[in-house]
Amino acid sequence: MSGGFAIPDSGDRAVLLLSGGLDSATCLALAKAKGRAVHALTVSYGQRHAAELAAARALAADYEVEEHRIVSVSLDAIGGSALTGDLPVPKAADPGSGGIPATYVPARNTIFLALALAHAEVAGASEIWCGVNAVDYSGYPDCRPEFLRAFQALAGLATRVGVEGGRAPRLVAPLLEMSKKEIVLAARDLGLDLGRTTSCYDPDESGRACGSCDACLLRARGFREAGLPDPTRYRPGIQIESRPST
Amino acid sequence: MSGGFAIPDSGDRAVLLLSGGLDSATCLALAKAKGRAVHALTVSYGQRHAAELAAARALAADYEVEEHRIVSVSLDAIGGSALTGDLPVPKAADPGSGGIPATYVPARNTIFLALALAHAEVAGASEIWCGVNAVDYSGYPDCRPEFLRAFQALAGLATRVGVEGGRAPRLVAPLLEMSKKEIVLAARDLGLDLGRTTSCYDPDESGRACGSCDACLLRARGFREAGLPDPTRYRPGIQIESRPST
Repeated sequence: MSGGFAIPDSGDRAVLLLSGGLDSATCLALAKAKGRAVHALTVSYGQRHAAELAAARALAADYEVEEHRIVSVSLDAIGGSALTGDLPVPKAADPGSGGIPATYVPARNTIFLALALAHAEVAGASEIWCGVNAVDYSGYPDCRPEFLRAFQALAGLATRVGVEGGRAPRLVAPLLEMSKKEIVLAARDLGLDLGRTTSCYDPDESGRACGSCDACLLRARGFREAGLPDPTRYRPGIQIESRPST
Repeated sequence: MSGGFAIPDSGDRAVLLLSGGLDSATCLALAKAKGRAVHALTVSYGQRHAAELAAARALAADYEVEEHRIVSVSLDAIGGSALTGDLPVPKAADPGSGGIPATYVPARNTIFLALALAHAEVAGASEIWCGVNAVDYSGYPDCRPEFLRAFQALAGLATRVGVEGGRAPRLVAPLLEMSKKEIVLAARDLGLDLGRTTSCYDPDESGRACGSCDACLLRARGFREAGLPDPTRYRPGIQIESRPST
């Protein structure tokens, strides 16, 4: 399973895919702790959970990134996902129970990494960081190390360096083999304000979490297993059994 | 060089990247001639040459495609290309003289094929057609067969089939090894109305071609070598030496 996507010992400029969720925020905190000049890239793709964009903006400001670019992609024109609006967001499913859930967005990570590759070329970045995780995840095909390896191979051919020589940006996925519990603990150790992150796939207008989608369940389980209180703001009346009493 | 991207003997449903240019229009005519049910996909990416979009719409209607989806991607938020507005379009350059011109859009074909892959998954298409050409082209890294091979490998891992089994959509690039002359002749033989296509990177507001960008020069040379009159509408006062007298 080991994929060679650990953080290199040295590095300077990195494009970082920043969604505003727990994983990408932890990535951001890690990249800054490792001395990277971060060029954050957020993709607005017609997702239901636009609260993500506000969280991404706040995190980019908190961490004083070099620049934060937001690229819009109208994936709702393609559809096929609960996250872009043409399917309901499944609730109270058992994350990791097998099968690919309706929240899967077709080819999303291929599209996101392609945009990051473009941005890395323009910014002259030698690394592309992403919060992809293959342990406590929802079974998405494009979160697996073999997918990242194939994208790394493509990156060596897809841009100027494929013709002119030089090195393609290196994919860095520091959370790839971490459990959600380990991610929560790493974020705490890095001093990340976890209340700034949002994970819910189906928040209300105020950005309050539903407590029952895959992302909420995985997040709550991570906090529970880490023994930390979850600062998530839930909709009124939501009881999260997995939330420790505070 | 041969890449295995020729048209398969049989096939049913195909996503086809349709820009409105000569190459993708020829692809469309070929796909229809080969009996494919075409799901056309056009990417609006902040390009200077929005006349392309109008041409794509007209062609999609002419050929009675199953559906025509237009996905917007704000690549101008990334920049780095003459086509997305932050560099001037080079004129009267010598196409194919080596080097990657300013009209190169970073990672464009990776982004486009990623969107096509998403669309193919949603539409249940077994093929992705694109008009990529590695002969009379502008030296873009992502027009080469080795790039397409790497993307094909990625496609097998990036979507549901990578986990659930089944075949990933097959990339079809029927123009890959054709000269522009051969493409013009193929288009004529297929009955494509070449006046419906647009190639210029820097047209005026009325969609009239500049006559001096890479795309105009390559197109004009193709028509000249094919011995056919070029129906391109040029801006007033433009003299195209390569246009045969009619």
